[in-house]
Amino acid sequence: MLTKEKNDLLTQTGPGTPMGDVFRCYWIPALLAEELPEPDCPPVRVELLSEKLIAFRDTEGRLGLMDRHCAHRQVSLWFGRNEENGLRCPYHGWKFDVTGQCVDVPSEEPAFCRKIRLKAYPLVEKGGILWAYMGDPDKKPPLPEFEFANVEPEQRFISKRFQECNWLQAMEGGIDSSHVSFLHSMNLDSDPLFKGAGGNKYNLSDMKPVFEVVDNPGGLLIGARRMAEDDQYYWRITPWIMPSFTMVPPRGDHPVHGHFWIPINDENCWAWSFDYKSQRDLTADEREAMKDGLGIHCKYIPGTFIPLANKSNDYLMDREAQRKGITYSGIEGIAIQDASLQESMGPICDRTNEKLAPTDKGIMMARRMMFKAIRNLQEKDERPPGVDPEQHKIRSASVLLPRDQHYKDAAKAALRVQLGEPHASV
Amino acid sequence: MLTKEKNDLLTQTGPGTPMGDVFRCYWIPALLAEELPEPDCPPVRVELLSEKLIAFRDTEGRLGLMDRHCAHRQVSLWFGRNEENGLRCPYHGWKFDVTGQCVDVPSEEPAFCRKIRLKAYPLVEKGGILWAYMGDPDKKPPLPEFEFANVEPEQRFISKRFQECNWLQAMEGGIDSSHVSFLHSMNLDSDPLFKGAGGNKYNLSDMKPVFEVVDNPGGLLIGARRMAEDDQYYWRITPWIMPSFTMVPPRGDHPVHGHFWIPINDENCWAWSFDYKSQRDLTADEREAMKDGLGIHCKYIPGTFIPLANKSNDYLMDREAQRKGITYSGIEGIAIQDASLQESMGPICDRTNEKLAPTDKGIMMARRMMFKAIRNLQEKDERPPGVDPEQHKIRSASVLLPRDQHYKDAAKAALRVQLGEPHASV
Amino acid sequence: MLTKEKNDLLTQTGPGTPMGDVFRCYWIPALLAEELPEPDCPPVRVELLSEKLIAFRDTEGRLGLMDRHCAHRQVSLWFGRNEENGLRCPYHGWKFDVTGQCVDVPSEEPAFCRKIRLKAYPLVEKGGILWAYMGDPDKKPPLPEFEFANVEPEQRFISKRFQECNWLQAMEGGIDSSHVSFLHSMNLDSDPLFKGAGGNKYNLSDMKPVFEVVDNPGGLLIGARRMAEDDQYYWRITPWIMPSFTMVPPRGDHPVHGHFWIPINDENCWAWSFDYKSQRDLTADEREAMKDGLGIHCKYIPGTFIPLANKSNDYLMDREAQRKGITYSGIEGIAIQDASLQESMGPICDRTNEKLAPTDKGIMMARRMMFKAIRNLQEKDERPPGVDPEQHKIRSASVLLPRDQHYKDAAKAALRVQLGEPHASV
Repeated sequence: MLTKEKNDLLTQTGPGTPMGDVFRCYWIPALLAEELPEPDCPPVRVELLSEKLIAFRDTEGRLGLMDRHCAHRQVSLWFGRNEENGLRCPYHGWKFDVTGQCVDVPSEEPAFCRKIRLKAYPLVEKGGILWAYMGDPDKKPPLPEFEFANVEPEQRFISKRFQECNWLQAMEGGIDSSHVSFLHSMNLDSDPLFKGAGGNKYNLSDMKPVFEVVDNPGGLLIGARRMAEDDQYYWRITPWIMPSFTMVPPRGDHPVHGHFWIPINDENCWAWSFDYKSQRDLTADEREAMKDGLGIHCKYIPGTFIPLANKSNDYLMDREAQRKGITYSGIEGIAIQDASLQESMGPICDRTNEKLAPTDKGIMMARRMMFKAIRNLQEKDERPPGVDPEQHKIRSASVLLPRDQHYKDAAKAALRVQLGEPHASV
Repeated sequence: MLTKEKNDLLTQTGPGTPMGDVFRCYWIPALLAEELPEPDCPPVRVELLSEKLIAFRDTEGRLGLMDRHCAHRQVSLWFGRNEENGLRCPYHGWKFDVTGQCVDVPSEEPAFCRKIRLKAYPLVEKGGILWAYMGDPDKKPPLPEFEFANVEPEQRFISKRFQECNWLQAMEGGIDSSHVSFLHSMNLDSDPLFKGAGGNKYNLSDMKPVFEVVDNPGGLLIGARRMAEDDQYYWRITPWIMPSFTMVPPRGDHPVHGHFWIPINDENCWAWSFDYKSQRDLTADEREAMKDGLGIHCKYIPGTFIPLANKSNDYLMDREAQRKGITYSGIEGIAIQDASLQESMGPICDRTNEKLAPTDKGIMMARRMMFKAIRNLQEKDERPPGVDPEQHKIRSASVLLPRDQHYKDAAKAALRVQLGEPHASV
Repeated sequence: MLTKEKNDLLTQTGPGTPMGDVFRCYWIPALLAEELPEPDCPPVRVELLSEKLIAFRDTEGRLGLMDRHCAHRQVSLWFGRNEENGLRCPYHGWKFDVTGQCVDVPSEEPAFCRKIRLKAYPLVEKGGILWAYMGDPDKKPPLPEFEFANVEPEQRFISKRFQECNWLQAMEGGIDSSHVSFLHSMNLDSDPLFKGAGGNKYNLSDMKPVFEVVDNPGGLLIGARRMAEDDQYYWRITPWIMPSFTMVPPRGDHPVHGHFWIPINDENCWAWSFDYKSQRDLTADEREAMKDGLGIHCKYIPGTFIPLANKSNDYLMDREAQRKGITYSGIEGIAIQDASLQESMGPICDRTNEKLAPTDKGIMMARRMMFKAIRNLQEKDERPPGVDPEQHKIRSASVLLPRDQHYKDAAKAALRVQLGEPHASV
């Protein structure tokens, strides 16, 4: 349970909000690289942390992310002409480069435009994603070092989907691995990107996982242990890196999944989803399944990132499939199963009514860490956990361990990124 | 005319509002029985008096109406699995019985769930309707005794439609029988459920009805008298039972119509419509006409209770039919004629501008009775009129009476329910 | 740049607002005459200056514009029966004449209705437009005398379109002739109602027009001069008459274009567009092109005044056409090019962020004149400029003048209306 005030504190991320300040300490995913595929391609409207922006790639291939509205009379630069190293407003021809600097006002002498500049943020391509940094320029950290972003393009697949709710309830779904045994249980047997893994049987047989959550540089390790044979536990270990990076523990030889949950504004967010294999390319079948909306990805309304099954059509609820146990909730697909329930909490989940259980330990500790980060940033200007890219070099893992060993020690090597080496996976 | 404050007082019915407290003293129609047709059928989303709820019928056939959101993390239980005498949240398998009691949290020991309970309300089937009581459990009255609910299913037909306005302006349309001579005048001759009655001629010939409204246990009797031959008056008597039950006076041998107007929230309501015959089954033709949207019923957008002709399509206004007098207002069907005008007053009618006439006497007295009921409930915790089911045992009537007799006395017997006996009808 | 307070002052025009008071000093365009084509035709819903009204033409052909909601119980009179010199509410038959006077309440004696009257405004047909005057009846000015309204119907074409933004940003686009060289530049060569004029070459060759704006009775003259051969300047002179009348300077022998920008409410306005020739009928080709949405007109969603290319479909943006220079912004048609950019500023442009340039001199002076008019009306009850119809008798002009002459003097005759004489046009 959170008070209204505390719930507001974590869920509001617009300019000037305390949690908004925290988010502005990080590089955050803004666009898929393929959304700005080539020099002088069409500009793209972006909304992040409640700021309306425009992104473009100039003639030299440089990336720009700046105020969406022209400095002159507030026309949206989405209508602009992207040409000769700048985005030109179609109203009076004012032109801006990727830094937001006005470089031409056709009706005036050059001196005029030099004094005009749009608010702009660095936008950098890495690992198939365009990352934005919206904070204090003097405190800009080095680029992210998440493993998926450091492997070859052939080894990964990235998608994003529009989600009609606040970022926090989406992220809390990502921390919470206990719902897999219910909501996604049928998918463990049927989804080509999940099925067949040896560990699945523990997920489905032990419905009382015990959670052990520990602090870790940059965030948390959330370990869920289930009973296994021979005096062993089956451990699934989910790292959370502040503010909103989570990774699903691996299953057999399947690619490893992960998410970012990025606020568009306080009532909408992007659910970023990636898959990668650390030691090999994705197979054609795996890539095909991902494109087809399987695993943690989804099908879209053509030309958009809005899922085909969404709130407006009750996520294509199929009561017959629910009744027959083809799906647990009647909704098809892991991504939409999550989206449907998270959105059903309302645009901003009212946490004054919630009743957390021991399985929500990860959620509770994550909130505590965020409250502390907010306080330290506000009071001491201290960068929050997860800003330092060294803290990104972590893996999820699924392992069988003797019952008398704690995963934190026994799985230490498994949780460390070792480029080119396979994940520890059951 | 009402001041803004008085208008707010009658139109607002959410939790904690004075008129909301009044509504919570009654059993109110929540669902058609056919919406929860059998054990373990799909749960149904309900919104009543601005509360978001979920209704379901369990394995034993018991009915539940409770908070829509799971106690745990606020997922909508509409996505739930209705199985083995409870509704199970698909996120982590928490299960609730029809009383709102949590009966299973799979990840925890049984003691955990015993302390968890959702707010729940009694939901009871009677007369083809599922009735909810949303008030103080210690003050729950006996079940309603409206005649239509006590006849055999073959003798009645019930429908509901979504109406895009506050409940009060809809209910006031139900009290007001003077509009029949205008808005519905052409329907008296053409609608198979209205036409041919001997009394219709008085409706259409005397456009200056005189209203005599008298207090009655539970509400009001609204008598409208029109000139008839031989020193007689033609009386149409409409009972109103608090807070929102009205009955249309009968015509010839046609079934008798009535309504409930139930707040969904302050800007939407359910228009409940029923037809019944006290002494015989409905004929196949009558039932067919009702299903077809004739009489006081309507056609729907398939799969919904939203009328096909609605605000978004200007109710399929036909100016040619208006001009030619095929319909009076250009809108087809009695139900949609009412809906169109009531919704045209705005989501919540602004009564600071209205100018009431003598024909609005019923409306004026009903408001006065409601203000008094609010005051008595707030100050003395006194149950409002209409809670006692004895007060439901009343009929509408249409009668010819000598001019020197008051209907209150002369029609006394006609207004009393006599099971199996026909209505007094002209 | 305007402060929030000053921006509110100019953009808000509802009842009781200072700028609303200014607008209520004028006759303003309310409807196309063709919207009420004949006696007893269907009434039309009108919203002007945030007031919801109903317009109708009675049996004698008289025009009425009055409160949309019936005085009795607030039913929309759009559902009314327009018959026998009055609009009759379909609920209880109350009837109102074109002055708003209630002339019949069927249930009551005649004395009853005499005391009932709806707020009504004069509505007068002139020049193909129905003009409304919504101000103090004692201060009603004579009818408008704009030249386009005084020529024969064969000499003019008038249209209106719904625009999804505040009136002011639309009007400011009308004052601002500098954007023509950018946004509409390709249309000068291709649109049949613009192309081929000798003056176009100056528009396209000199991108640094110099603006000279001078006060004029009723408003401003906005002169834009561009370099021409032989020691001449090419002057384009745009009159602005308060509060929202603008005229485009003529091109060759093309019809002359002009606009009104009329607030529907604070977030929507009507863009009125007219074309006329002072000395001849429009040709069949010209009229056809206008009906087809060329020039400053547009194509509509059938049965509405909503443009086919609108905000909901990104104005049918064609990036290929933008890239190839078929259109400058990728949007087709001068009207929709303007609409797209003006609407992209947001429902009410936030002028606290704008940076005006010397080419915005007309906009700056117009705002100053409006602030002064507001002050004079509030403090001294002084009618604002442009109320006196003598001030309407002005023309736009395009002329070549020796560089040492000011257009104000040298084009004096060209700017005066001379009925039947051609415009000064290059």
